[in-house]
Amino acid sequence: MNSSHEEYSPSYTLALRLEIPNSPGMLGRITTQIGEAGGNIGAVDIVEAVDDALVRDITVNVRDEAHGKKVARMVRDIEGLKLISVSDKVFLLHLGGKISVQPKMKIETREALSRAYTPGVARVCQAIHEYPRTAFNLTIKSNTVAVVTDGTAVLGLGDIGPEASLPVMEGKAMLFKEFGDIDAFPICLDTKDPDEIVAVVKAIAPTFGGINLEDISAPRCFEIERRLREEIDIPVFHDDQHGTAVVVLAAAINAAKVVHKEMGDMKAVILGTGAAGYSCANMLINAGFREVICCDSAGIIFEGRKENMNSSKERVAKITNKKKIQGSVLEACSGADLFLGLSRPNTLSIDAIKKMERDPIVFALANPDPEIDPREAAKVARIVATGRSDFPNQINNVLCFPGIFRGALDVRAREINEEMKLAAAKALAGTLRIGELSEEYIIPSVFNKSVVRHVADAVAKAAVKTDVARRNRPMKGREEVTIY
Amino acid sequence: MNSSHEEYSPSYTLALRLEIPNSPGMLGRITTQIGEAGGNIGAVDIVEAVDDALVRDITVNVRDEAHGKKVARMVRDIEGLKLISVSDKVFLLHLGGKISVQPKMKIETREALSRAYTPGVARVCQAIHEYPRTAFNLTIKSNTVAVVTDGTAVLGLGDIGPEASLPVMEGKAMLFKEFGDIDAFPICLDTKDPDEIVAVVKAIAPTFGGINLEDISAPRCFEIERRLREEIDIPVFHDDQHGTAVVVLAAAINAAKVVHKEMGDMKAVILGTGAAGYSCANMLINAGFREVICCDSAGIIFEGRKENMNSSKERVAKITNKKKIQGSVLEACSGADLFLGLSRPNTLSIDAIKKMERDPIVFALANPDPEIDPREAAKVARIVATGRSDFPNQINNVLCFPGIFRGALDVRAREINEEMKLAAAKALAGTLRIGELSEEYIIPSVFNKSVVRHVADAVAKAAVKTDVARRNRPMKGREEVTIY
Repeated sequence: MNSSHEEYSPSYTLALRLEIPNSPGMLGRITTQIGEAGGNIGAVDIVEAVDDALVRDITVNVRDEAHGKKVARMVRDIEGLKLISVSDKVFLLHLGGKISVQPKMKIETREALSRAYTPGVARVCQAIHEYPRTAFNLTIKSNTVAVVTDGTAVLGLGDIGPEASLPVMEGKAMLFKEFGDIDAFPICLDTKDPDEIVAVVKAIAPTFGGINLEDISAPRCFEIERRLREEIDIPVFHDDQHGTAVVVLAAAINAAKVVHKEMGDMKAVILGTGAAGYSCANMLINAGFREVICCDSAGIIFEGRKENMNSSKERVAKITNKKKIQGSVLEACSGADLFLGLSRPNTLSIDAIKKMERDPIVFALANPDPEIDPREAAKVARIVATGRSDFPNQINNVLCFPGIFRGALDVRAREINEEMKLAAAKALAGTLRIGELSEEYIIPSVFNKSVVRHVADAVAKAAVKTDVARRNRPMKGREEVTIY
Repeated sequence: MNSSHEEYSPSYTLALRLEIPNSPGMLGRITTQIGEAGGNIGAVDIVEAVDDALVRDITVNVRDEAHGKKVARMVRDIEGLKLISVSDKVFLLHLGGKISVQPKMKIETREALSRAYTPGVARVCQAIHEYPRTAFNLTIKSNTVAVVTDGTAVLGLGDIGPEASLPVMEGKAMLFKEFGDIDAFPICLDTKDPDEIVAVVKAIAPTFGGINLEDISAPRCFEIERRLREEIDIPVFHDDQHGTAVVVLAAAINAAKVVHKEMGDMKAVILGTGAAGYSCANMLINAGFREVICCDSAGIIFEGRKENMNSSKERVAKITNKKKIQGSVLEACSGADLFLGLSRPNTLSIDAIKKMERDPIVFALANPDPEIDPREAAKVARIVATGRSDFPNQINNVLCFPGIFRGALDVRAREINEEMKLAAAKALAGTLRIGELSEEYIIPSVFNKSVVRHVADAVAKAAVKTDVARRNRPMKGREEVTIY
């Protein structure tokens, strides 16, 4: 989803506030100057009239920060003009944060106050105290998810700490609401200690119906998730692992259809052993792939390898590469049907793709720059997918987490298990009909409105079937609070 | 704020859903029956038409649960009628919880997605990572408060646990928004261990600009608040202690004006040594009261008392009763100007009030039932205040916490100190002009819209003056994100 290949980017739009004297040709001079500096003018708005001048906001698309500074400098140098401020659309949008907490009803009368707060609320508290399950009916619990991070693996930025990760978690909360109608709240933790993270999440769990772990670095993320899943009775889902795996499997299912292969005949090579590697390997195996081989920069990972191992790689070695093949990434690719990159830019060669089976499928998901330039890859691969929005087949977690949590919350699931994830992947794949599928359309757009309901229904059904649901349908209206 | 003295209560309103055959006189028969059962009919709404019948919702005010059951039974017995469900307005209002998390802008286009989320958000994260203070500008931190409880002292219900406390915390979050335009989020903790509570709140602090501790039992609440205040750099405020104290002091200031006394000449007797006792004693002393005596059910508390002591009482003994007077509550009241009850129903006698100085001021704040029936008290006291909305002079924390947090957040205060609390009390008292004051009007209504701004401005000013503010005015518009 990076856009370094685009000339202008929505993430670099300046908002120049100017005081422009009322003299003929002045605005023209400014726009010409901006054009000469290479800026691309968007809207021009009048803010107010002052004395003999107008205050205007001019939005200008620029290429990057350096370019923006150049445009601002050239505008500042125009004589007779006052440059009041140079803002930036992205920063302006973040001013004061991106989410708010809203009451569902106004409290403007004594009657409303006495129903929503004391004394009326006391009866509701007593009901929950007496019948703990009614917490799901009578509080925000049934629709609320904590987006929990420790800020150690934020986007491609790494360990930037809890405060700096908050804009991402707020964004995630927005997506939960926009796509899943779920109330999500960011919890950014000022600790990196797995024991403490587990203790904190356990302690705050009563408010929530689910926990979305986010941007926690490997291998700590594995232990944290495992322990939380054991210790609390609401779903705990590390999106970087499983969200990615669900969308990858969905894309793989549809890619297999396009190239007319059965998953039981297919071999996958996965490059990268971070948070998503294990989960992707596991899902592909559970979905029926004949063979899954994982690699790191040192080559194929096999059980018993001595060099360059760590706990993440040991886990991966246990479930993949049953024949204990050894060798380079290039050798791993020999005879592979699917290459899945979860690593770094420029780690996959054209030669490696050439060694693959007929109709190679390449998912190059390194962000912002993929393992191989997707245009180059497309010359030899039949199907190419990336994490980016400016190429076909975007593998984006937004396709999974709103639907999978929606389904889990609808039936008050105690966990999100393998069956639910598999169901999510199959439902996501099934959102596209066979006739719609093509090399450039193996996965729906993130703005495809039918995805969430499709995924949620399949996930809810799988939860009921595997006996982790507390009920078998979403909450309805007043029959939920029949009192006597 | 209890309403046991009212015939009908907004906290007991039934919503009967009935299927009523289309035959003449049927509705009349129902309403007559409800009337005969003693129910007071509110609205009658048509829900839908089915076959030869109408589905109607009838709301009926009843006295209490037993009465509601009687009304429902009598309606159920009417021949030819189908009682579909009996709900309750208070429970219906709580269905699915009372707050939601809302994005401040829609994400319906690729452009919006790339500004609010990846890749645009990465620049915002980097800016905060580089300049940590900008977290206040660019995230929800500057306007977000955690409402933290362990569910151990909820309303008058006691230790009902975190899930059952959630409706109160949601209600509190609603009030924060409605009265202070503050985004508050409930954090209900599944632990009662002070060490763990401190650790959890420290860990989750990065998301928040303030921590409102709520309904945590004494004496644990004192240690938890003290340690958190020392260890985190945002305000930590236990509302049950300090919110109460601020409103009590404001009422005391105005009551003193009504009876033409100076605080420096006044003696206060406080009955009750729970969460609010110490804070109220401390504030009255700081505000200049000549003498403050605290009592429990065993009588006057003095330094060195051996029986019935605990850490809360030791704290109180240290700052009050300098002359180490001993005796009963009755004896304590001798010569007192203000009686402040923070204890249990029926613990103050008429005789005790009669022993007070001229123009006794009685604040009987036990909830739901005061230390003395306020109508009885008014026969001998000049001024009576309670925690209830159905008598004059309601001492309600809603008059304090929205304004005090609003002021603290506006200047990004690091703490809420004594000066800020005193400023809040004085500003709250000053909301009423001298000419408005009377025996029955010593404190503004909770719906008085001018209270919050009044209190907030005074609190912000006190924060700046005592050097705990990070800035000296509220955040404004785009000049906050001038980038170059």
